[in-house]
Amino acid sequence: MTTPLTIGALRRAYLAGSATPSQTLPDLARRFTDPDQEGVWTSTISLDDLAAKCAALEADPTAKDLPLYGIPFSVKDNIDTAGFDTTAACPAFAYRPDASATVVARAEAAGAICLGKTNMDQFATGLVGVRTPYGTARNPFNPDYIPGGSSSGAGVSISTGMVAFAFGTDTGGSGRVPASYNGIYGLKPAPGAWSRHGLLYACRSFDTATVFCAALEDALTVDQIVKGHDPKDAMGQNFAEKDIPKPRIAMAPPDKIDTFGDADVAALYQQAYTLLTDALGAADADLTLFQSINDLMFFGPYLAERDVSVGAFIEANPNDCHPVVGPMIQASRKFTAADAYRAQYETAEAQHATQAFWQDHDVLITPTVGALVTRAMCEADPLGPNFRNGTYTNFANPLGLSGLAVPFGRTPQNVPWGMTLYALPERFSAAVGVARSLASLTGAGR
Amino acid sequence: MTTPLTIGALRRAYLAGSATPSQTLPDLARRFTDPDQEGVWTSTISLDDLAAKCAALEADPTAKDLPLYGIPFSVKDNIDTAGFDTTAACPAFAYRPDASATVVARAEAAGAICLGKTNMDQFATGLVGVRTPYGTARNPFNPDYIPGGSSSGAGVSISTGMVAFAFGTDTGGSGRVPASYNGIYGLKPAPGAWSRHGLLYACRSFDTATVFCAALEDALTVDQIVKGHDPKDAMGQNFAEKDIPKPRIAMAPPDKIDTFGDADVAALYQQAYTLLTDALGAADADLTLFQSINDLMFFGPYLAERDVSVGAFIEANPNDCHPVVGPMIQASRKFTAADAYRAQYETAEAQHATQAFWQDHDVLITPTVGALVTRAMCEADPLGPNFRNGTYTNFANPLGLSGLAVPFGRTPQNVPWGMTLYALPERFSAAVGVARSLASLTGAGR
Repeated sequence: MTTPLTIGALRRAYLAGSATPSQTLPDLARRFTDPDQEGVWTSTISLDDLAAKCAALEADPTAKDLPLYGIPFSVKDNIDTAGFDTTAACPAFAYRPDASATVVARAEAAGAICLGKTNMDQFATGLVGVRTPYGTARNPFNPDYIPGGSSSGAGVSISTGMVAFAFGTDTGGSGRVPASYNGIYGLKPAPGAWSRHGLLYACRSFDTATVFCAALEDALTVDQIVKGHDPKDAMGQNFAEKDIPKPRIAMAPPDKIDTFGDADVAALYQQAYTLLTDALGAADADLTLFQSINDLMFFGPYLAERDVSVGAFIEANPNDCHPVVGPMIQASRKFTAADAYRAQYETAEAQHATQAFWQDHDVLITPTVGALVTRAMCEADPLGPNFRNGTYTNFANPLGLSGLAVPFGRTPQNVPWGMTLYALPERFSAAVGVARSLASLTGAGR
Repeated sequence: MTTPLTIGALRRAYLAGSATPSQTLPDLARRFTDPDQEGVWTSTISLDDLAAKCAALEADPTAKDLPLYGIPFSVKDNIDTAGFDTTAACPAFAYRPDASATVVARAEAAGAICLGKTNMDQFATGLVGVRTPYGTARNPFNPDYIPGGSSSGAGVSISTGMVAFAFGTDTGGSGRVPASYNGIYGLKPAPGAWSRHGLLYACRSFDTATVFCAALEDALTVDQIVKGHDPKDAMGQNFAEKDIPKPRIAMAPPDKIDTFGDADVAALYQQAYTLLTDALGAADADLTLFQSINDLMFFGPYLAERDVSVGAFIEANPNDCHPVVGPMIQASRKFTAADAYRAQYETAEAQHATQAFWQDHDVLITPTVGALVTRAMCEADPLGPNFRNGTYTNFANPLGLSGLAVPFGRTPQNVPWGMTLYALPERFSAAVGVARSLASLTGAGR
């Protein structure tokens, strides 16, 4: 295992003069061919281009003031990035975008340098990371296990120390599940809080870009830089964030948490529950209401939003698509417009029904995943383990929540496992506060 | 023609002791069988029930303090009202609700007394008022003309002086078009500003209850009483209204307004344009962007929201439905979930694109209808004149706008014609200010 990179450490070294981007970044790029990078990238920057970018940055006398000066980052391959193809893990779908997505452009304007595009479940349809023709990224903690998806390469690009931040996306959990499997942070804004311009939509109503980092403060730094109104995003929203000095937290009692027979996760959750109840006064939460809309996303009409995005391509190129992903998206064609509206009303009713919870609580804490999935399990059953990975994530975007996936511990098999702290977007600071408390209690984060 | 009733005049008479509900309201109820009330009502209160309600109110010593003490009102028959069937102008569909819709309950709690349920285009699908088995309400100004719809009975219950306020509903224009045809005010809140609990939805995403009044101030009084958060409405919204002392207004130049060959409306609009440009400094507006989404509502997937609401009934009872309305709603079944999401994105894009207009303007003024429709025209062509009635109204709810339909003048055939003042819900006070200025300039309102 390589030590993960952090924005903070890199920045201190650059400012102290003990390192420069020209020295640091090519060393990282030379690692693209290392075994631990197999299945992580769909395309990478050339050493020449990287050298030119570093030189241009270093030639600008004011560049060192930029908050992300010389910070290496990766971009999930469903987010447009100038100079790279967008493939969404489907080579036949590849196109070369004219311009970078707004979140990427904002990071680059702040001095960051993109090392490459990362692998993913094709068309962001999956929570496992194995649904890709680019090979499954290896979980660096235990190669028997999946890296988590759909932002699989993004997660591993952090856990293997290749970049200091990695842009992912999240519709049903893709920006949280890989955080759990890689022992890192995954910050998932509420839909609309970050610009969606330049994303290949999976489900435009609920998609959001996300960021993975080894350090919590790095995720917050990126959030500050990329969020905010973008005239190019018709569905953006501004949330008035407020300070929550004493967050009221809630989590379900262990006997109400389904770990699908995974005793290791059950033990970790019990430990987390005891810790949070004792140290932070966590109240009991009932997850039923939240989970009531889980099935709408992948078994219901919202699946048809994927058809809007890539359905015509799948229809024209069925043999070029992943054998699980293509048919799943095409199956959405059975849903009528009336079904879509019913799902929308049901979502609105559920969001409305959760208001009572949010009157009494600031942060809802759940497992990020309820059971740890091996590659062998995915091979034996391409659907079941994938859906189980979404048990505690699917509901968040339809309900308009922000989520912060945080590391907690590891199983006896050395596989990381974490939790997600959910909050209304206006009270995201409460989730951050709990994450800081938790990190100091467990030492799991940084 | 009877003089219209106003809340203000009735209240003054009650407070001065020159009238009581027990004297005033039965006189109105005795007029239900008058020829001008044909086609206005689907059900009415009995004289006994009315007497009992008046007596109960008068027996309460504090009731006179209520802002709507003894004020008679009507309710469109797609809004639940305890004690009356809800038919939505389809007798076979009738059901007896357990409780009143929130807007009705709030009006009654403020002392108002409901005289009956009013006729409408069946299932609120129409802008003409002729699509009903209860007979077409007569336009009191010229019987050759339609009353406007779908809230036809509501409009005529005001213009014939039967009630002081009339609840209607509006999805594509039903709360505005009858105001124009009856020379009265129609206040259409932005979707979500008024509770939708107890409405038979036509298109739940964009429906709203509305109010018709002879006097602008009466509409504002009702707005104050019924608006605001309702825990029973999952899709309600709170808008922070602000004062706009000097509204910036805009309207399209007369040569950009399609009056479909109606020279009388063209002349009235020219008069309005000159007046508003001279007296209030109206700037030129381009309506293209607003009207770009008109067709989504009745030719696109949003039609399927009506299928969600009444489709199963229509399928089971095809012969009990209006021959235009039933098939139109059933035709929506050709739309897929993907179509519904595409329409939603298009709506969001259009709403986003109109933001530039609202940065520079507070009030958009359009004709309420572009041409006046006769009953004979509707008989000859049940679709065309109906759709033309929506040219300047269809876009408002999908774009989240508040609308205030105001009277302006009459054609040589004595048919009233008015305009609608559109504003963002936060700036509705600007539309009210313009309506007041316009009333004092034209003498058309009160």
